[in-house]
Amino acid sequence: MNDDQPLDPAQAGLGDMDPQAFRAHAHRLVDWIADYLAEIDRYPVAARVAPGEIKGALPGEPPLAPEPMARILADFERRVLPGITHWNHPGFMGYFGITGSGPGILGELLAAALNVNAMLWQTSPAATELEELILDWLRQLLGLPPGFFGVINDTASSSSLYALAAAREALDDLQIRRHGLAGRPDVPRLRLYASEEAHSSIEKAAIVLGLGQEGLRKIPTDDTFRMDPAALAAAIAQDRAAGWRPFAVVAVVGTTSTTSIDPVPAIAELCRRERLWLHVDAAYGGCAAVVPELRWVLEGCEHADSLVVNPHKWLFTPIDCSVLYTRRPDMLRAAFSLVPEYLQTAERGAVTNLMDYGVALGRRFRALKLWFILRYFGREGIAARIREHVRLAHELAGWIDAAPDFERLAPVPFSTVNFRYHPRALDAADPAAELRLEELNRRLEAAVNATGHTFISHTRIRGRYALHAAIGNLRTTGTHVARLWTLLQQLAPSVSS
Amino acid sequence: MNDDQPLDPAQAGLGDMDPQAFRAHAHRLVDWIADYLAEIDRYPVAARVAPGEIKGALPGEPPLAPEPMARILADFERRVLPGITHWNHPGFMGYFGITGSGPGILGELLAAALNVNAMLWQTSPAATELEELILDWLRQLLGLPPGFFGVINDTASSSSLYALAAAREALDDLQIRRHGLAGRPDVPRLRLYASEEAHSSIEKAAIVLGLGQEGLRKIPTDDTFRMDPAALAAAIAQDRAAGWRPFAVVAVVGTTSTTSIDPVPAIAELCRRERLWLHVDAAYGGCAAVVPELRWVLEGCEHADSLVVNPHKWLFTPIDCSVLYTRRPDMLRAAFSLVPEYLQTAERGAVTNLMDYGVALGRRFRALKLWFILRYFGREGIAARIREHVRLAHELAGWIDAAPDFERLAPVPFSTVNFRYHPRALDAADPAAELRLEELNRRLEAAVNATGHTFISHTRIRGRYALHAAIGNLRTTGTHVARLWTLLQQLAPSVSS
Repeated sequence: MNDDQPLDPAQAGLGDMDPQAFRAHAHRLVDWIADYLAEIDRYPVAARVAPGEIKGALPGEPPLAPEPMARILADFERRVLPGITHWNHPGFMGYFGITGSGPGILGELLAAALNVNAMLWQTSPAATELEELILDWLRQLLGLPPGFFGVINDTASSSSLYALAAAREALDDLQIRRHGLAGRPDVPRLRLYASEEAHSSIEKAAIVLGLGQEGLRKIPTDDTFRMDPAALAAAIAQDRAAGWRPFAVVAVVGTTSTTSIDPVPAIAELCRRERLWLHVDAAYGGCAAVVPELRWVLEGCEHADSLVVNPHKWLFTPIDCSVLYTRRPDMLRAAFSLVPEYLQTAERGAVTNLMDYGVALGRRFRALKLWFILRYFGREGIAARIREHVRLAHELAGWIDAAPDFERLAPVPFSTVNFRYHPRALDAADPAAELRLEELNRRLEAAVNATGHTFISHTRIRGRYALHAAIGNLRTTGTHVARLWTLLQQLAPSVSS
Repeated sequence: MNDDQPLDPAQAGLGDMDPQAFRAHAHRLVDWIADYLAEIDRYPVAARVAPGEIKGALPGEPPLAPEPMARILADFERRVLPGITHWNHPGFMGYFGITGSGPGILGELLAAALNVNAMLWQTSPAATELEELILDWLRQLLGLPPGFFGVINDTASSSSLYALAAAREALDDLQIRRHGLAGRPDVPRLRLYASEEAHSSIEKAAIVLGLGQEGLRKIPTDDTFRMDPAALAAAIAQDRAAGWRPFAVVAVVGTTSTTSIDPVPAIAELCRRERLWLHVDAAYGGCAAVVPELRWVLEGCEHADSLVVNPHKWLFTPIDCSVLYTRRPDMLRAAFSLVPEYLQTAERGAVTNLMDYGVALGRRFRALKLWFILRYFGREGIAARIREHVRLAHELAGWIDAAPDFERLAPVPFSTVNFRYHPRALDAADPAAELRLEELNRRLEAAVNATGHTFISHTRIRGRYALHAAIGNLRTTGTHVARLWTLLQQLAPSVSS
């Protein structure tokens, strides 16, 4: 992208970018993106910049006059791109292995161009109806029964917040929507439950909803990091006896650290008996249910009151796209629907107005990209890709298991592997050795990431510092996983010295 | 877009769309979009479809096998496009006149292709640093003093929720983050204040935060729909005497119905005296402060604890992009920061991690489009465009004022005009006439919108049904505003019969 170009016709006047100028700029940008995607493995995965370096290389004040688009794009390439960590790189295996895709990018481009706001049915009927349709498609792909209503939010953190707001609203004797929680002697302390491995977003939701961190009780997990239903039952009984009012349980299908799967059938049965709202966080793991032989991961979820699954994690959808399903849309609406006169429309009652189901009023046309993706890959294509990621993860796990100086730290139900370098000479029973192992693995993580060929992250499992490799990028193949393994083995000895 | 094409190479295999196939599809889509934007006024503004029509024309099940991209795009054009209400159409004047722009679309395309998650500095330093830089540019453009920290959220509803969560957290004697609000005899009922004209998102935030609808007290407005500071002071005093604990005031710069501007300097002084958090909702109106002669609209906002302004409303940015500024980032972080081990990074402390300032953990690279837009138009270009929108609105207001059968229902501080058809024969003092006027104006709104040339919405002002024309689209010129006025005059007699 070279930068010496005149201004577009009309750029210095009023109005938008001239459509013919848009055409020319967009074609050039498309070529750049196609090249970028074709050559993505020539970039270092993680950005090699120091804090403040990107900001420092750009002017501190906005320009007075218009600038040529070519110059702006050239500055992107020169000044911004070096500060990008390439989530598209096939060697990116940090956090969850999220992935966009070609059809997803096309969907985002078209949605940005249309720029409709899907707040009301009337403000673009197709945006609402395509969202309804496509979320029913996804429901079928996941093997969930009919009766689940879906709505797209930005992230799982928002989806879980909205679900728990609905769960709180379902305590209808308390009329929390109207009276709130503060200063009410008639309201007991409220509690929700999740395992100690659940995502921090659940705790954040408890804070926002006015339940406080103490309003979330963390339940211990078993040897495979799954919530212990007996411990959950005991906690609920204990809390009831102490005057708390339990109201919801969050079960996780694919926890963030170890991707463990809580025993949803047992938890669902407990929730039924105790009349508690069951919310399932399947943001990552739920995507795997598209694969027939992995459908079991959502076993029991048919009883959930709400469930979140994120197509932007492992269904090839550019960020952001989180789907909240609920069997109780009435409660979501009871918690959130507020319709001032200026949003009243003649169709209200006959149509779905998606603004009624969450905090955000303005809503992007996110259904479009998901529709493109589900059709472009098809049910079989999606399943084949997820199956391959799981296969690659098991291959890596096998290599780790066979290596005397490495150890795996958790089972691999999906495509994420937690492990550490553990030279035989170090006895983990010795507390000093544990500190030494953390130091070694921090160094190994940094060394592997510094190569630019791969990017892994870390977590802590039962106090132990764990390296975390998540395979979920559409470009990742056996070659890239093998390269990670080679780098780990090659670099491990050097971090010990 | 014709639909009979073979599958792409590798589409039926594993991996993403082949980069050369992406190139070809994206070029075709760019041409379609450029044509669409060039010919936008050939479409009817509002979709002409019945509820269920779009959904009913599409298959109820996802495809098993991959489909050619050309077929998917052809189906978009054939099946989805008729259900689109064209917010890009120069005749779209409903709600707020939001507008995307060419550079904004390019920014979204590039962000979708990069698909980085800006949750942590480390996960793409440039995404965080560009957000910091560009929000400081915008701060300068708006004339706000240094010391305002900015963060991009999806919508103003989220931004205001986060701001009020910080305000609640600032009641540090109550330790709400830790203990919550429920079942606590030591916590009084909490109250926040906003005018009766404030947006419904403030009430929604009160519900979510556990304050309840009663936790928001709506303050009366004066003849020009501005919050009455004396009434606010009286309400606070009364509430304190009755045992409530006031904690925040929301002032609005550009209310949703009439775009009135609350007297922020007086409200800020009251907040200072009463030690209340001042949040300013300038989602729409704040954008106008880029125009030097309109800078006064943010007068007093330098004292706000937090302020929201939405570039996706009137700064040419495709939805979504809402900026939350605060002088108390510590409080926002105190309300929201939760850092599990898997999100710890070596740089923490030395860098900004934007996930610490709100609910959403995953964050799109929204700063990119805003950077493109501010540079492409420049400070002067942005000001010129907003100035022109205001001029057009005043022109329309002038025509209405001069017409004997129409009346204006509110002042026009920005680019939004509220008015109604009011045949001289109808005496508004007669209650029956008021009902008749509502009926006539509902019909006139429907008739004008049915032409397909324009789209206006409605609101209710002091009980009166008002037609609402908001000029903010980059393609709207004097011709389009004149056409609206011609249509109103031509169709008004027909709705009376």
